[in-house]
Amino acid sequence: MTDALPLLQQLIDALKALPGVGPKTAQRMAFQLLERNRDGGKALGDALLKAMEHIGHCAQCRTFSETELCAICRDVERGQSSLLCVVGSSADLQAIEQTGQFDGRYFVLMGQLSPLDGIGPAELGLDVLEQQLNAGNIEEVILATNQTVEGEATAFYIAELCHRRQITVSRLAQGVPFGGELEYLDGSTLSYAFSGRKSF
Amino acid sequence: MTDALPLLQQLIDALKALPGVGPKTAQRMAFQLLERNRDGGKALGDALLKAMEHIGHCAQCRTFSETELCAICRDVERGQSSLLCVVGSSADLQAIEQTGQFDGRYFVLMGQLSPLDGIGPAELGLDVLEQQLNAGNIEEVILATNQTVEGEATAFYIAELCHRRQITVSRLAQGVPFGGELEYLDGSTLSYAFSGRKSF
Ligand SMILES: [Zn+2]
Ligand SMILES: [Zn+2]
Repeated sequence: MTDALPLLQQLIDALKALPGVGPKTAQRMAFQLLERNRDGGKALGDALLKAMEHIGHCAQCRTFSETELCAICRDVERGQSSLLCVVGSSADLQAIEQTGQFDGRYFVLMGQLSPLDGIGPAELGLDVLEQQLNAGNIEEVILATNQTVEGEATAFYIAELCHRRQITVSRLAQGVPFGGELEYLDGSTLSYAFSGRKSF
Repeated sequence: MTDALPLLQQLIDALKALPGVGPKTAQRMAFQLLERNRDGGKALGDALLKAMEHIGHCAQCRTFSETELCAICRDVERGQSSLLCVVGSSADLQAIEQTGQFDGRYFVLMGQLSPLDGIGPAELGLDVLEQQLNAGNIEEVILATNQTVEGEATAFYIAELCHRRQITVSRLAQGVPFGGELEYLDGSTLSYAFSGRKSF
């Protein structure tokens, strides 16, 4: 057409940075904000700039935090808990927090071991985790990494770090998910559920 | 959990202003930008603030524009064309531009008549359209509003404005869409396609 609308085109292009947003969706989002929700659009612009600028990582557990220590690590009870749960991402941490079942501390890997992608122990902050294990007040490490090949490899690696220090290690139970129908489960899940069966 | 992360929570809440984005998707978007694309997040924040602030409407055709007249209306040939196409939204204008089939000017209603929602002729800028029709250099108006009840009502209303001024009016053809399989068409489309059949 023409040189048209630099700002509008810039906005549509910028929206494509969001996961799952292609050109069509980006255009719909831009028009929707311009037509019906300019205040919402401004608030989002502000929130993005502030968040990208000021959110860093907790110095102890590595989860996203705008303060040096996150709220959990600052908590007198939880921050020095002898129970440490290792998760792959802040989203996983949030999911566990929402169950309300865990009151220890976390260590957030922000990824998982993937040598082919250049993600080794250092990238996951495992040197920091080792220092914490060395400090001596951690009694049990719960490995809550993903039940995938890479998540398992990561769990094995960290389990080894704990074994060397005689720290108890556990792994989240594998099995049939709540509400799961056997007919629709994949074979690996079913195998694990069998081999891990408990008396009833 | 705790007071946690005001900025992160603000960002997640703000992302929900985007159409089709619920709490889960908003959280995934926020984490993705923070983990992997802070530059993209900043660029989006910037683009949003600039767009919401500086994009207004073209004084002639009402489409989104950051200048008084949009690029099409500024074009010497197109801006004073005797052929005017009326569309419901800037997205519809874009869709027609992408066909490359139309080289006249537009009038963008930014909505359609909907008395129950308080959207009457004034809200659609039909007074501005009337002034343009009165100016005398428009020979044909193509009604490209949606083929819905409200789009049809809007088209009828504007057709009447043209008839009173002896200006030719046309409406986009209705019928089987390209690639459309009769088996899956709704009854109304099929009826229109029948009644509008052409010699072959
Ligand atoms: Zn922390
Ligand atoms: Zn214009």
